[in-house]
Amino acid sequence: MTEPIVPKIEDQALKENAAKPKKEKPAKAPKEVKAKAPAKKKIEGAEMKGIDVAKEDDLAEWYKQVLTKAKMIDYYDVSGCYILLPSACYIWRTIREWFTDNIETLGVEEGYFPIFISEDNLTREKEHIEGFAAEVAWVTHGGNSKLEKRVAIRPTSETAMYGFFARHIQSYQDLPLKLNQWNNVVRWEFKHPMPFLRSREFLWQEGHTAHFTKAEADKEVLQILDWYAGIYEHLLAVPMVKGTKTNNEKFAGADYTTTVEGFIPSTGRGIQGGTSHMLGQHFSKMFDIKVEDPEKGPNGEAKPAINVWQNSWGFTTRSIGVMIMIHSDNKGLVIPPRVAKTQVVIIPVGVTAKTSEEKKQELYGDVEKFAKDLRGTKAWDIKVRVETDTRDKYSPGWKFNDWELKGVPLRLEWGPKDKEAGVLTYSRRDTGAKSTIPVGDLTTEVPKLLETIQGDLFTKADAEYKEHRKEITNWDDFVPALNSKNVCLIPHCEGDDCEDEIKKMSARTSEGDSAAEDARAPSMGAKSLCIPFEQPDGIKEGETKCTNPNCKELAKRWVMFGRSY
Amino acid sequence: MTEPIVPKIEDQALKENAAKPKKEKPAKAPKEVKAKAPAKKKIEGAEMKGIDVAKEDDLAEWYKQVLTKAKMIDYYDVSGCYILLPSACYIWRTIREWFTDNIETLGVEEGYFPIFISEDNLTREKEHIEGFAAEVAWVTHGGNSKLEKRVAIRPTSETAMYGFFARHIQSYQDLPLKLNQWNNVVRWEFKHPMPFLRSREFLWQEGHTAHFTKAEADKEVLQILDWYAGIYEHLLAVPMVKGTKTNNEKFAGADYTTTVEGFIPSTGRGIQGGTSHMLGQHFSKMFDIKVEDPEKGPNGEAKPAINVWQNSWGFTTRSIGVMIMIHSDNKGLVIPPRVAKTQVVIIPVGVTAKTSEEKKQELYGDVEKFAKDLRGTKAWDIKVRVETDTRDKYSPGWKFNDWELKGVPLRLEWGPKDKEAGVLTYSRRDTGAKSTIPVGDLTTEVPKLLETIQGDLFTKADAEYKEHRKEITNWDDFVPALNSKNVCLIPHCEGDDCEDEIKKMSARTSEGDSAAEDARAPSMGAKSLCIPFEQPDGIKEGETKCTNPNCKELAKRWVMFGRSY
Ligand SMILES: [Zn+2]
Ligand SMILES: [Zn+2]
Repeated sequence: MTEPIVPKIEDQALKENAAKPKKEKPAKAPKEVKAKAPAKKKIEGAEMKGIDVAKEDDLAEWYKQVLTKAKMIDYYDVSGCYILLPSACYIWRTIREWFTDNIETLGVEEGYFPIFISEDNLTREKEHIEGFAAEVAWVTHGGNSKLEKRVAIRPTSETAMYGFFARHIQSYQDLPLKLNQWNNVVRWEFKHPMPFLRSREFLWQEGHTAHFTKAEADKEVLQILDWYAGIYEHLLAVPMVKGTKTNNEKFAGADYTTTVEGFIPSTGRGIQGGTSHMLGQHFSKMFDIKVEDPEKGPNGEAKPAINVWQNSWGFTTRSIGVMIMIHSDNKGLVIPPRVAKTQVVIIPVGVTAKTSEEKKQELYGDVEKFAKDLRGTKAWDIKVRVETDTRDKYSPGWKFNDWELKGVPLRLEWGPKDKEAGVLTYSRRDTGAKSTIPVGDLTTEVPKLLETIQGDLFTKADAEYKEHRKEITNWDDFVPALNSKNVCLIPHCEGDDCEDEIKKMSARTSEGDSAAEDARAPSMGAKSLCIPFEQPDGIKEGETKCTNPNCKELAKRWVMFGRSY
Repeated sequence: MTEPIVPKIEDQALKENAAKPKKEKPAKAPKEVKAKAPAKKKIEGAEMKGIDVAKEDDLAEWYKQVLTKAKMIDYYDVSGCYILLPSACYIWRTIREWFTDNIETLGVEEGYFPIFISEDNLTREKEHIEGFAAEVAWVTHGGNSKLEKRVAIRPTSETAMYGFFARHIQSYQDLPLKLNQWNNVVRWEFKHPMPFLRSREFLWQEGHTAHFTKAEADKEVLQILDWYAGIYEHLLAVPMVKGTKTNNEKFAGADYTTTVEGFIPSTGRGIQGGTSHMLGQHFSKMFDIKVEDPEKGPNGEAKPAINVWQNSWGFTTRSIGVMIMIHSDNKGLVIPPRVAKTQVVIIPVGVTAKTSEEKKQELYGDVEKFAKDLRGTKAWDIKVRVETDTRDKYSPGWKFNDWELKGVPLRLEWGPKDKEAGVLTYSRRDTGAKSTIPVGDLTTEVPKLLETIQGDLFTKADAEYKEHRKEITNWDDFVPALNSKNVCLIPHCEGDDCEDEIKKMSARTSEGDSAAEDARAPSMGAKSLCIPFEQPDGIKEGETKCTNPNCKELAKRWVMFGRSY
């Protein structure tokens, strides 16, 4: 069997994909040319190439353009792999620091396990390898030598780590053991790749812990899930629904999987945001991770050794894609202030041909001073991440577009009129709202405004998600609700086969529907996203039927179904 | 050709390698057993298994034991790969933060490029691929499918990144471009692996920059090298010699390579600490990274496009191994305070069978309070990283050994006698020196003492390196000096062949020498380590001959030669 065909990005395509604003001819005559550039030189880049397709018309193309033109990612010549540029790395670093600070309060420590996994270890837990076998990348050669035994590139590190757990855990006093690592993993998927959302290599953190009791493991799984929701809500301004995966959708080798599930309004599809797994004793039995039981039997005899209870939990760079899909618009990225590499840009305005050089330099000087004040100098200052844009060759309008494309949350303008009035004009990237801030209030008002933007982004997305989470009890309403870009909560029996059947039924009947919206999944069926922790009322035990009309079972709980990524 | 045989670590060996103190029988009767442990239970781990081979007797075995028993690394079942445990990761994180803070002042931004490199790109620069071809790991399969085109795992990312550079750099105004990434790379070496020093996967940072002028590139190369030396000197307390690599030893594809070179006193061998390369225009020509020349010709005509000048610079986890080799001793690790995950341990002492529970709890309470004071609570406090050890089942002596094994720089003891005298007794890990600190001076004296330890570690290592850097002008003294565990500076012609000849001559004549010290390299020849920036006097232009007696050339500069890792 050879590799299925996956769309290739040719060099030429790469060149076309990349934003090349600087190669364009100027739309307007440049105001002035400074420094090295000789007087007659063509001014490059004075016209900006914005996004030329609307989010609502072609989400996939819009997404590609917004990512590349705003220089968040670039394409690469190995299919399914992408280049993460500094604004993406900044977001990831912020997530890393926030999450690290939190897990350290649980005593989780940082480790690093090898990227290679021996085939023996990888295949040790049966369900696990069944779940990953189809996507494992294999190294077979080193230099010109064929390896005696091929090695796998980690798709996840349970099987890389648990041999160490077995050696290290010699007594119940060595428990709990809590390790986390930040690394790259590879899943050689053959589905159509998308930057952040589905890539063959991605960055993540994976936590792996071992506990003496199931209760401890259960508790930690939920604590981690709360922090995953916290990353989305507090940093990325993205709402999530917390819940448990159904048996069909749980992690390969887990007792149960908890999850945060997000929602992409443009397509009405759900998206998994992060998962925290209770692995039970599956792996500890296969890897022989056990400790003596400190309790004795009734006659003082030793009890059998106890296999430890394990958790694993992972959070990936996919989260960045979810954030972008939700907040960004036809002008470009919209980045929540807390994760924006640049939070504020200050742009001098109102400089015309008649403005004296002295006046201009005075304005520019003011701009630099405002930036310095906002950046702060002392340890306890609020440190706003500010850029100034005093490039002479671009008009203010061009600059506005450029920084809007990049998603900078707040723009401040400073010109002769502002100076006269003693205020800075601001413009919010999220709403476009404009107003002014008195110069003297700058360092107190800007941080507040950034927090307001952060909060408003979340509130808006949260309202939208709530509006598109429909409680459905009649099967006839199910597919139409999906077709209207909703996810659906239905009373469900939690049966595996019933779930599969719902997927098929919703796929079949949806034909002709969302074809324009996503050409590659015109008749995608709805799968179960999670069993939400927060359950609506209405299921009467022993009475309410499963919503699937072909199913004879009673409903156990509300299960959230949806088309998904 | 199949894979050469590399020593395999079998599961059984792994189990034996791992430190298992908890499985040992107690050497002494435990004082008391607390909490969950039932009264009759065998007290595990009351005897500590220290390092049972001396550094001076068998360095390789000592190194393995110190790393595994102090839980800095663990072995793994893929040869040449190692598990980095939290104390190692802590050091790496400290380096990462320090270096990031520094390079950000140059405007270097963080990016992340894929781990996979297409064969087309990897082989584009001829010298480069010649340098790496023998060590490249190849992925040939995804799941059960053979890939249409195999992909390489990055041994370094020049060829992964420079396609992006070519697309992104459209004008001289896009320069300089400065990106850095923290990642893992793979070099499938077949030499005997050693944790940190030679592993098939390692962690590093790699910076890649493009400049308009050679002068800018030259300047940055040296700035980065200074920071590499700074990591060693300021954080790891390890002295380095800065210099340039000879033509033979430079990076594959570079114009020139600058380097920091360290020294392992136990073997008298040099070790490369980090390299900063000026790549010239080699890659920019192969990857077509060029910009228009803003200057015009004499008649106003456009000049030919200019290929950018590039640098790349990398610093790896090898540095941690160098630090350990230099400072650690037969009691275990010695970690410099600035990179120690735990800087201070406080241990209650003098608790005997006669001590009342109340008195004991009082002492323990004091210990926790001292720890809290040292950790600090306010943002501007000095935050000492402190652990307390109030485990009842171990004797103070056992604990002393345990924390010494782990390399904690400073131990504080607190017992009834100390309390009476109003002082804490301290013991320095590096020198074993003991003295006291008045209770009231704790938070001022401990940080000072830690800085003293940090400084003393460097001073000692620096003196040792200086003592073992011999200036040799007579060939007859060269090999004996190597055999006495020195590295040698000699006047040299800088000829490639002459260098190779010196290697051969010093290998041949060293037979029978250091066999006991390193069984795998009994007659290793000396290679050039660097041409030090700081040149001794004594070379007279047109007069001083190359030190190689078979060489007819004149000496250009002093070149440092040595046996090496
Ligand atoms: Zn059902
Ligand atoms: Zn010579």
